[in-house]
Amino acid sequence: MRRTVDWVDGAVVIIDQVALPGEYRVLELRTVDELVAAIQRLAVRGAPALGAAGALGVALAAFAGGSADAVRAQAERLAAARPTAVNLRWGVTRALGRLDEGAEAVLAEALVMLDEDEQLNRTASAHAAEVVLAETTRRPLRLLSHCNAGHLATVAWGTALGVVWHLQARGLVESVLVDETRPLLQGSRLTAWELAQAGVPYRVQPDSAAATAMARGLVDCVLVGADRIAANGDVANKIGTYPLAIAAAHHGVPFVVVAPESTVDTSIASGAAIEIEERRPEELTELGGVRLAPAGAAVFNPAFDVTPAALITAVVTENGVRAPQPTS
Amino acid sequence: MRRTVDWVDGAVVIIDQVALPGEYRVLELRTVDELVAAIQRLAVRGAPALGAAGALGVALAAFAGGSADAVRAQAERLAAARPTAVNLRWGVTRALGRLDEGAEAVLAEALVMLDEDEQLNRTASAHAAEVVLAETTRRPLRLLSHCNAGHLATVAWGTALGVVWHLQARGLVESVLVDETRPLLQGSRLTAWELAQAGVPYRVQPDSAAATAMARGLVDCVLVGADRIAANGDVANKIGTYPLAIAAAHHGVPFVVVAPESTVDTSIASGAAIEIEERRPEELTELGGVRLAPAGAAVFNPAFDVTPAALITAVVTENGVRAPQPTS
Repeated sequence: MRRTVDWVDGAVVIIDQVALPGEYRVLELRTVDELVAAIQRLAVRGAPALGAAGALGVALAAFAGGSADAVRAQAERLAAARPTAVNLRWGVTRALGRLDEGAEAVLAEALVMLDEDEQLNRTASAHAAEVVLAETTRRPLRLLSHCNAGHLATVAWGTALGVVWHLQARGLVESVLVDETRPLLQGSRLTAWELAQAGVPYRVQPDSAAATAMARGLVDCVLVGADRIAANGDVANKIGTYPLAIAAAHHGVPFVVVAPESTVDTSIASGAAIEIEERRPEELTELGGVRLAPAGAAVFNPAFDVTPAALITAVVTENGVRAPQPTS
Repeated sequence: MRRTVDWVDGAVVIIDQVALPGEYRVLELRTVDELVAAIQRLAVRGAPALGAAGALGVALAAFAGGSADAVRAQAERLAAARPTAVNLRWGVTRALGRLDEGAEAVLAEALVMLDEDEQLNRTASAHAAEVVLAETTRRPLRLLSHCNAGHLATVAWGTALGVVWHLQARGLVESVLVDETRPLLQGSRLTAWELAQAGVPYRVQPDSAAATAMARGLVDCVLVGADRIAANGDVANKIGTYPLAIAAAHHGVPFVVVAPESTVDTSIASGAAIEIEERRPEELTELGGVRLAPAGAAVFNPAFDVTPAALITAVVTENGVRAPQPTS
């Protein structure tokens, strides 16, 4: 499978995640404007993939040939394109650190980050697979995931779904329940597509059916990614992660978060300080030209929620299980 | 507003709930076949409305002029059209009790049930309004509801939304958060439409945002209806009710169920014995011609879930707060 985010002939090349699963389409983005638009309409999404896209975007800006200040202004626009995933700003900042050495150095740094991403995800998800095996007894496993934390959310391999790939290779996966993940359906559109490609048995369910699946004993472990992890271990992730964690705790089902260390934001003591993006009403009131709510309906549409560390069995990164730092 | 289910000139007349909110359309159903089809595609839905529709359907069968056995066979088809809401079978059975007196007697009984429905709902929701006021302190109230338990779920007035109408009349409602209620969006399509008609401020949210709303202190009380209530007080209701109750308990938010006594099934000791309807995959994989999941995606699509009595603040009927009978 090609990388979700890559650099080809002077362009940022992405798999268009808005077109899936109906169409597999690759987009070439040649300006920061195009990349910011792609990020905002979620053609590229997922915290690690956003980090890579941000770094490559700085290369686009550097090659455009403006002043250092102009490049920095473009970089800031990129970093601010979406507020919750810390990886986006992290990727921008890291690539920008090479700007004094010229555009080629910026690109080289970004390409190193792309290479690192797959390796970090493979390592983090291998650690997490061991955690899942230690926390569960049933074999093969019935797993549940929310949103998309797979290949498409990263440069390659994935985080939460990376655990599925490791366990599948060992014959330890029976099936995966996929939360459809309203409003933008990253679960039914993207995670289901990845599982189908990989030949892993899966079922798509309404987000609100996850608790019933747990009550019926159909879920051995929940696996999710993260968009930002606070110093105390609170996790911001796609809306719906928090009620899933509450339900998992209620049913005694292990709840494991998998993410690269770049998702950890030690500048933030707890989840209460994480800015949560609110997105436009039309994500809830329309779909494919069909009106789903009365004209003029107001909405509450936070893109993410915050799961307190106390509800999480383990946060796992490439360094292993992360010990939360209690807030003072 | 006209009745959701009514009898006009020899036909069962319903508000077509599949067409809302895009179109307000009234359907005339003249055969049991047409009524069964309307029930199965949810053109008429909601436990109390199904009870009324079932009773009127027996009148349709009786006027069709077959043998008593033929009418009973048609009645059984109606009663079995959907398995979870006990009211459907209750309505069919009650109307059928007059069959020996002829078709006019069956119709008379059904029409009495229609008249009773609005009065029972007004009484039950008035009792529930007092429970809500006793369980909360903030005024005016920020309420949250799931699915549709309003006028459209009943012959008239509604159950959970009936509480909103009572409280609104007293100036005690600030706003209502409306779970969109995947997969069939009875919240964003029907509840939002009813609230808009009534001039009650509301916001539609993904079902998975309810816990975040609670965590932010935006919810004073949750109000839902019921499709079947077991003797011990366990409640079967639209999928998503159970995780909402878990989240409400987690946040100390009162969780109130409002339904007519006809929703109580004392033949069932606990929720574990309630049959849960599973509906077709396309409810999750398609919407308005748009494919939402890969071709051939398997789904887990239970239409209802079971909320244990322990998570419910009060089950309120026309007789007041219902005391659960513990299972022996």
